[in-house]
Amino acid sequence: MTHDERLLALLHKRPDDYTSGAELAERLGVSRTTVWNHVEALRKEGYVIEACTRRGYRLVSAPDRMLPDEIRRRLRTQWLGRRLWCYRETDSTNDVALARAAEGAPEGAVVLAEAQRRGRGRFHRKWLSPPAANILASVILRPDCHPSLVSQLVIAAAVAVAETLRSLHDLDAHIKWPNDVCVGTRKVAGILAELSAEAEQIKHAVIGIGLNVNMAPAEIPKAIRATATSVRIDLGHEVSRLDTLGELLVHFERWYDQWRRDGFAPVKARWAALSSSLGRRVEIVSGTAKITGLVADLDDDGGLMLRLDSGLVRKVASGDMTVVG
Amino acid sequence: MTHDERLLALLHKRPDDYTSGAELAERLGVSRTTVWNHVEALRKEGYVIEACTRRGYRLVSAPDRMLPDEIRRRLRTQWLGRRLWCYRETDSTNDVALARAAEGAPEGAVVLAEAQRRGRGRFHRKWLSPPAANILASVILRPDCHPSLVSQLVIAAAVAVAETLRSLHDLDAHIKWPNDVCVGTRKVAGILAELSAEAEQIKHAVIGIGLNVNMAPAEIPKAIRATATSVRIDLGHEVSRLDTLGELLVHFERWYDQWRRDGFAPVKARWAALSSSLGRRVEIVSGTAKITGLVADLDDDGGLMLRLDSGLVRKVASGDMTVVG
Repeated sequence: MTHDERLLALLHKRPDDYTSGAELAERLGVSRTTVWNHVEALRKEGYVIEACTRRGYRLVSAPDRMLPDEIRRRLRTQWLGRRLWCYRETDSTNDVALARAAEGAPEGAVVLAEAQRRGRGRFHRKWLSPPAANILASVILRPDCHPSLVSQLVIAAAVAVAETLRSLHDLDAHIKWPNDVCVGTRKVAGILAELSAEAEQIKHAVIGIGLNVNMAPAEIPKAIRATATSVRIDLGHEVSRLDTLGELLVHFERWYDQWRRDGFAPVKARWAALSSSLGRRVEIVSGTAKITGLVADLDDDGGLMLRLDSGLVRKVASGDMTVVG
Repeated sequence: MTHDERLLALLHKRPDDYTSGAELAERLGVSRTTVWNHVEALRKEGYVIEACTRRGYRLVSAPDRMLPDEIRRRLRTQWLGRRLWCYRETDSTNDVALARAAEGAPEGAVVLAEAQRRGRGRFHRKWLSPPAANILASVILRPDCHPSLVSQLVIAAAVAVAETLRSLHDLDAHIKWPNDVCVGTRKVAGILAELSAEAEQIKHAVIGIGLNVNMAPAEIPKAIRATATSVRIDLGHEVSRLDTLGELLVHFERWYDQWRRDGFAPVKARWAALSSSLGRRVEIVSGTAKITGLVADLDDDGGLMLRLDSGLVRKVASGDMTVVG
């Protein structure tokens, strides 16, 4: 732990009381001037710390920022997020996570950023997120399975995001195939899985989650305002990003553990309950092709089984889906 | 081109005649002493260059080494191998190729090495190859397809290797599922595909080919002497590694082009003709599981369709196969 982190831990212990500068200096093994310098540094990070003559310091509030210390304070997982990298800005959390994974980062390590210079979704589409408004997280996983099963992890992540929005924010979130989470007809989160693999085996996978938490209406580009939303927009007020992340990691850990233990069936069953398209008539555009049918099932590699008007069932591996019925 | 390469090109033009030092110096725009220094450097690379007073220099023979200039001289492909990286020694040509691909190397770029410090096969097994004896090549591809189809590229590469051994060396080579090429019951080549991908789309794939060309019997570790071989061992004499590589690239380019144009069917048909196991009774060990049956077919994602004694057909995604019938 750094001095800042130890100072914070000490202040967090007495939320309603002051701790004297002398005590803090002794505990940290530094001078009282150095304690003051650390307090100033923390204030610049957004911490509100009261300083009172002869009584000492008191932590009034912590910022809702993706700081390792604040995340760890809320961590209720067994293994997911125990190793963290937090950036104010990076090109793409998925790129960082892929690089860290290639260097040997452990399963469950998470890369977070307040802003991305080159955030992206599927098909090299841009993923836009104003600084310090949303959750941009990339989880490193090392599942012992065939590369085609990575789609099952995308489904598990989508289930975790939808459950987080339901349990913590009481939003009627559902999953839009293949990798979006929506509230009503508007997208609130997207998932981008990337992997490094041999032909028959994944070496490591990175599950990138972009979840719009506190983005304001004006921060959504006009072109996607009809199709994108955030938790704040739907609830009418800001929420804690840190609490949302904490809840998300718990749900994702639970589903990943279950997937490892019991396979895809339970994940798929939960997906079915949260899906906005199962049993409905949809149109899927894939490249220049367009196909219409009834969503009959989800295949084990994440493809959608579509019952065509002819009665034939056809599998669609990827594309952009719209519910038409 | 470097001075060495230009000097070689000039000497190659007159295989039966001498070129004067004065002419070479003029063509290269350097002194006659510098020409002499370049000749010495090339001799160290293994080139035999005759020097005759008053007549000049003559190239007697080029070394059978993986030198860019020698490879290019034999290149009969349209696009495969037009970009080359050649190493005396590297950790693993696949690692280099994956790194180059991530940096944007074009499709068809090839990484070659005379020796690998950490050569590997499937399941992190070691791939051993004495220096300057065999072919260690990794091809960078950018197919526009689902990650599960990378197995089709492994099959295409295996077909190309088997055809090379048949057409150039008249060896009765066949393919052993999933990624080996054998002569008789002994393995002569292995293929290791690795990829970087999104859930639904390959970003780039690397097809690593280890082909035992001139490895001597004593150079094969005792533990695998019964199951490994080389072209030299089977023919009883050394062959040109450069010619073998040239032929291999032609075959692989042809099959990859056909796969892109016509899909997997023609590749699979050729695999069927070259397979040592189709229609035969095999045992496949996968982890702690063992399964026995008749090889009925190859699945589109490279899995083997096995007809069990019960009559059921079951797909096996990966494992170690032995023909038992």
